[in-house]
Amino acid sequence: MTVIQTDKPWEDVRQHIASGDATGLLGFLNHLGPAETARAVSRLTVEEHGQMLTLLPPPDAADVIEEMPEAQAVDLIEDLPPEQAAAIVDELPSNLQADVMAELDAQDREAIFEEMAPQQAADLRQVMDHPGNTAGGLMATEYLAYQDEYRISDVISSLQANREKYADYSVQYVYVIDAEGCLVGVLRMRDLIFTSRAARLRDVMIPQPLRVCVDNTLEHLKEFFGQHRLLGVPVVDENERLVGMIRRVVVEEAELKQANRQFLRISGIIGGEEFRSMPLLVRSGRRLSWLSINIVLNIVAASVIAFYQDTLRAVIALAVFLPMISDMSGCSGNQAVAVSMRELTLGLVRVRELLRVFLKEVAVGIVNGAALGLLLGGVALLWKGNPYLGLVVGGALAVNTVVAVSVGGLLPLILKGLRLDPALVSGPILTTVTDMCGFFVVLSMATILLPRLVP
Amino acid sequence: MTVIQTDKPWEDVRQHIASGDATGLLGFLNHLGPAETARAVSRLTVEEHGQMLTLLPPPDAADVIEEMPEAQAVDLIEDLPPEQAAAIVDELPSNLQADVMAELDAQDREAIFEEMAPQQAADLRQVMDHPGNTAGGLMATEYLAYQDEYRISDVISSLQANREKYADYSVQYVYVIDAEGCLVGVLRMRDLIFTSRAARLRDVMIPQPLRVCVDNTLEHLKEFFGQHRLLGVPVVDENERLVGMIRRVVVEEAELKQANRQFLRISGIIGGEEFRSMPLLVRSGRRLSWLSINIVLNIVAASVIAFYQDTLRAVIALAVFLPMISDMSGCSGNQAVAVSMRELTLGLVRVRELLRVFLKEVAVGIVNGAALGLLLGGVALLWKGNPYLGLVVGGALAVNTVVAVSVGGLLPLILKGLRLDPALVSGPILTTVTDMCGFFVVLSMATILLPRLVP
Repeated sequence: MTVIQTDKPWEDVRQHIASGDATGLLGFLNHLGPAETARAVSRLTVEEHGQMLTLLPPPDAADVIEEMPEAQAVDLIEDLPPEQAAAIVDELPSNLQADVMAELDAQDREAIFEEMAPQQAADLRQVMDHPGNTAGGLMATEYLAYQDEYRISDVISSLQANREKYADYSVQYVYVIDAEGCLVGVLRMRDLIFTSRAARLRDVMIPQPLRVCVDNTLEHLKEFFGQHRLLGVPVVDENERLVGMIRRVVVEEAELKQANRQFLRISGIIGGEEFRSMPLLVRSGRRLSWLSINIVLNIVAASVIAFYQDTLRAVIALAVFLPMISDMSGCSGNQAVAVSMRELTLGLVRVRELLRVFLKEVAVGIVNGAALGLLLGGVALLWKGNPYLGLVVGGALAVNTVVAVSVGGLLPLILKGLRLDPALVSGPILTTVTDMCGFFVVLSMATILLPRLVP
Repeated sequence: MTVIQTDKPWEDVRQHIASGDATGLLGFLNHLGPAETARAVSRLTVEEHGQMLTLLPPPDAADVIEEMPEAQAVDLIEDLPPEQAAAIVDELPSNLQADVMAELDAQDREAIFEEMAPQQAADLRQVMDHPGNTAGGLMATEYLAYQDEYRISDVISSLQANREKYADYSVQYVYVIDAEGCLVGVLRMRDLIFTSRAARLRDVMIPQPLRVCVDNTLEHLKEFFGQHRLLGVPVVDENERLVGMIRRVVVEEAELKQANRQFLRISGIIGGEEFRSMPLLVRSGRRLSWLSINIVLNIVAASVIAFYQDTLRAVIALAVFLPMISDMSGCSGNQAVAVSMRELTLGLVRVRELLRVFLKEVAVGIVNGAALGLLLGGVALLWKGNPYLGLVVGGALAVNTVVAVSVGGLLPLILKGLRLDPALVSGPILTTVTDMCGFFVVLSMATILLPRLVP
């Protein structure tokens, strides 16, 4: 694989576009490799995107689109005239077609549907009728199916005759259907080698093959491929009619996408991925929608401090420790959130097992709270020479660590039970609870011990 | 697929183990599904794990091990006598063998090697000689290769004769080698159908097939499978000798594992995954190793506040806003970290493009800083009726938001350039920098404007 290592490949791309040199552009992109193509294309302007996709033949334009992150691919398609967009969408694999079309405005989408061949539009609408993370939304409609009346020789002739067309299919299995289109059997590609050419499919097929239903969820599919070492599985509708097939790789890609979305949501990037090539106000707006909720929660938490202003004025050293108690409790709580999210993803814990998680986290909280409390209390003692200050600061951090890990461990389970997204909601709730509790514990303890704290 | 839905499957497992009922246990696990098996097994004690793996025949014990998260699988293997451990490891797929063996203590590992068949031990050592995230570490040594002298009919006879043995192989390709074992061609399974049985492999093979080298990195493999729609690729050593093959799914699983590890590290879970079934002190210790670094950084940051105690005592309201400025700046910075990490993963940004990222982030920082600063400044003004307090608090948040997003956007690039792990290191450095800067800006502004702030 020759990968051209140029520092600014978008400048070459730009030159080829400007001179209208389709062959040169194609040759350059073919040698660039997918990651570099995505990087180069993301640097072009909206106009250049349009020119590039117009310049390339639709199959090659589709190859470029396939290599882009989804959010960028959607932007590119959106800016094209419907006729041209339809020609490119037509060349995408069917599950990617559905992903891209689902992200478009309803109006753009309908315009593209109208430009597509009626049968293809109908197939695509069928896939899009199902939610993205179900078998129906992930399945490909390119598969091989023959009636059980057929002979092996018929299948081989059909395969040979359609070699070109099937080259793009990921053909591992031949499905066998009855006269009503219901799935009745399967043959592996290699079975075609070992079997007499005169045999009828119904006599040599593996009958009643494993299958999934259009409305099975991604969770179910993950479990299915975990249990069965298959490269793909046929998809049937509620009447057992064969409607598509799902490859293992598609399920694994969906899983990876889910993991990446989770990472972004937990970092406060919502409403889809952000790329620095997006317009400034889109990027600012998306980030702000999250930050503005967070600032309100922060104001609520800080009101606890406002309530104890007199204590603070008397023992100003406490003001130094408040942000530390807030930050350390947040960190301890986030570790517990991460462990619960992983255990949920791996299926090691169920939503109802609150008591078990609580007991496990309290134990960690007591050990870590004691360690961190002694450390911070010691620092306070050394700094001001007042053992009561050490007691207040260290004791508050110890207590709040126990609270933070318990809340952090339980939150993802509770949120999942309430059908909320733990990745998105755990963080802000956790920090608000731990801040309020931490500020309250340290300042109320200080108020009680005030005579001992004032020098 | 029948999945038994029992609330506490580990109790059934425990009963079967206690009564020594291997057939009953096997039947129960087969119907349980992989996720539930993993959950049930994770609840057993160390003794029960040993009894269970002793009870099951090695191939079935290996199936259970395969379904466990890797960290738990390693613990299970470690506690077994070497002879028994070797029998189970022998039944695992070769890339999982390497993963598990690599995590064992050197002593346990050698004991297991000694119990294995010499040829299998040698094969496994060869895989383990390569770092885990390279082609050599990910490859399987189960593949089909025939010399170019052979005829198609020889291959078909060999396939038929070894049907049983090859059932577990993921056979999609037949590789063709010369007398020295060098890779010279490839045949797809379906090519065997279309070709005359008398033909020699060298005359019908696809010559000079795509290949990867044992020392190619995971990044390279991701790019390879992104560019080529293949299900697997042969692996050659530096002398072009065929040594293994890598399936696409193995690369995608490695990618998912990498994404999950990144999520855990960014949440402060280091040294491998944590499960609540692990001993308390292991869990506490791992979390503490991270927290104790964090608390030191917190003390450093808070020392800025200690420096301005007089200002704080004069304007105690500032103490209410310090934790808010710290938290909000941390959130803004983390968003920028997440965007940079995604762009790095997708290859949309290079380590050297610091200036571009900086300019893009400063723009977002100015917009969001202005919005958040106005909001918080307004709250301060309304609360105390002092416009200068609003100016100090809002202005400081605005300035610090710009600092936080710039630092957050650049940190992952800089850390990656220094070959440090951005997921692990970005968070603590970011919060320390933004805390110190935020505390300094708000308190120094307040010190300058002190006469206007004191009521």
